[in-house]
Amino acid sequence: MSERISVAQAAEVLRGAEDILLLTHQYPDGDTLGSGYALCRALLALGKRARVICADPIPEKYDYLALEMPDFEPRFICAVDVADPALLGALNETYGSRVDLTVDHHPSNVGYARQLLLKEEYGATAMLVFELIEALGVAPDKAMATALYTGIATDTGCFKYSNTTPLAHRMAASLMELGAPAETINRAMFDIKSRQRVELERLALRDMTFHFGGRCAIMTVTNEMVKKSGAGENDMEGLAPIPRQIEGVWVGILLRQKADGSFKVSLRTGNHANASDICARLGGGGHACAAGCTLDKPLNEAVELLLSTVAAAVPRIAL
Amino acid sequence: MSERISVAQAAEVLRGAEDILLLTHQYPDGDTLGSGYALCRALLALGKRARVICADPIPEKYDYLALEMPDFEPRFICAVDVADPALLGALNETYGSRVDLTVDHHPSNVGYARQLLLKEEYGATAMLVFELIEALGVAPDKAMATALYTGIATDTGCFKYSNTTPLAHRMAASLMELGAPAETINRAMFDIKSRQRVELERLALRDMTFHFGGRCAIMTVTNEMVKKSGAGENDMEGLAPIPRQIEGVWVGILLRQKADGSFKVSLRTGNHANASDICARLGGGGHACAAGCTLDKPLNEAVELLLSTVAAAVPRIAL
Repeated sequence: MSERISVAQAAEVLRGAEDILLLTHQYPDGDTLGSGYALCRALLALGKRARVICADPIPEKYDYLALEMPDFEPRFICAVDVADPALLGALNETYGSRVDLTVDHHPSNVGYARQLLLKEEYGATAMLVFELIEALGVAPDKAMATALYTGIATDTGCFKYSNTTPLAHRMAASLMELGAPAETINRAMFDIKSRQRVELERLALRDMTFHFGGRCAIMTVTNEMVKKSGAGENDMEGLAPIPRQIEGVWVGILLRQKADGSFKVSLRTGNHANASDICARLGGGGHACAAGCTLDKPLNEAVELLLSTVAAAVPRIAL
Repeated sequence: MSERISVAQAAEVLRGAEDILLLTHQYPDGDTLGSGYALCRALLALGKRARVICADPIPEKYDYLALEMPDFEPRFICAVDVADPALLGALNETYGSRVDLTVDHHPSNVGYARQLLLKEEYGATAMLVFELIEALGVAPDKAMATALYTGIATDTGCFKYSNTTPLAHRMAASLMELGAPAETINRAMFDIKSRQRVELERLALRDMTFHFGGRCAIMTVTNEMVKKSGAGENDMEGLAPIPRQIEGVWVGILLRQKADGSFKVSLRTGNHANASDICARLGGGGHACAAGCTLDKPLNEAVELLLSTVAAAVPRIAL
């Protein structure tokens, strides 16, 4: 297990480190990228060499976070927002067993790094990175504020989810004052949809199914739908919350078909069910309100397995 | 024109007032209702008689704001979030010319009240009411915090729109600490859609049209679509932002048919166009990014008029 350390201790560790490689998780989102780039900028500001890498291509909508980063042989490995080395994807083989420090907010963190800075009460890892940057003695500039705001806004659903705390709001206020262009970020993260995406949603909504008297909704995005809509990888984010947005739904499920035909499953729940508990029964994990797993089965079997698992984990749903 | 007064002066005026009737605007939204109910509760806490009224039925989703209110013959009339007496709807005839005080954040406020407390830099009237309640010497309780949070969250699009300021975030933090159940409010305001609403969106999206090379998107909700979807009045909110959420759209327009066949038009714009300017040319008004008007014409004529008005107001859109 990792040694748990404080923000001040993590800052001390980073101050003593050189040639720092920052690892983000696969299928990168705003929090892992915002956290990684903000911390990278702070380390560069301290005169260190630092670089952010990711196993997967970074969606274009995050282009505004990018920066010039030096190349070097890493001497210190730090993972941000990565709960499990398996989530490093293709980077796991090379780096998974050599992570010196993880900065994370996932309660499900498996403790794979030598040292761990974890605040599970935070809605985003970026909140922790904000504290870490200040503890490093770096005054966050506009670019860091932009990256941190991106992490907080995306992981809290723009301050809408239950993980939004007063502190998240106060940090957002400070980051706006430091120059984070909140509206531009939020429009890029939450509002803008391509016409292809609108078409994909229409196809997926048409075939949505309801179970347990409407308490469970399942939306499926097949490779065929993706092809028909013309949607690209960048059009895929933000589909997972849709099923639970329907009135009366306790458990909202998105099944997204992968290139190999298997399904990436995303669950969303409220107070009536625990997504992490359901997904753990299927070899996955995550947060109480948002979790995921992978099912390598034909669609009808995957749906059956999901429904029986939901029924077992949330007996009241079938009453 | 109204005499402009400060928060402290408005508090002084209200402290001297008795039997206060609070007027909200027609088609009530979270800000007018949240502001009205919060101020009403504060006045009741001061031992005064106060009551909130609205020309239109209050959508069920705001039921949690409701409270027992005394009946009385009003001796002081205060309008909240009402920029123009015409927006009082059916209440205009009785009260429009007798408003003692207006508390508002709309730059377009026409100055119809005897005294006016206006902060146009605020994203929501509820922010001003929060300050007013504190100036009245009332400690906001959980119910007031809930109403105020509702106003701020709804008018800022859950802290997503350009009118969101650091102060809005800090007030949200304080209101959460005072007990506002942010997640529950946000889920009710932004997330939950009935199955009828999902069906209505699907119908409206199917027939959406694009103009000026995709820079203008028009979505229409006809009475026939409403009937076919089974949607009720409560399913109608939050449709207006949809057209502008599509990539490349400068001007997003929703036309909603009313019972008499005329169209209520809602415009949404970003930095490239001014919604208020466009709507003013059609006898309407609002904010720079969100404005509206009414067109009593057949659909095709209404669309033609809108397109020519947009082209005249935003010449670059047709380039």
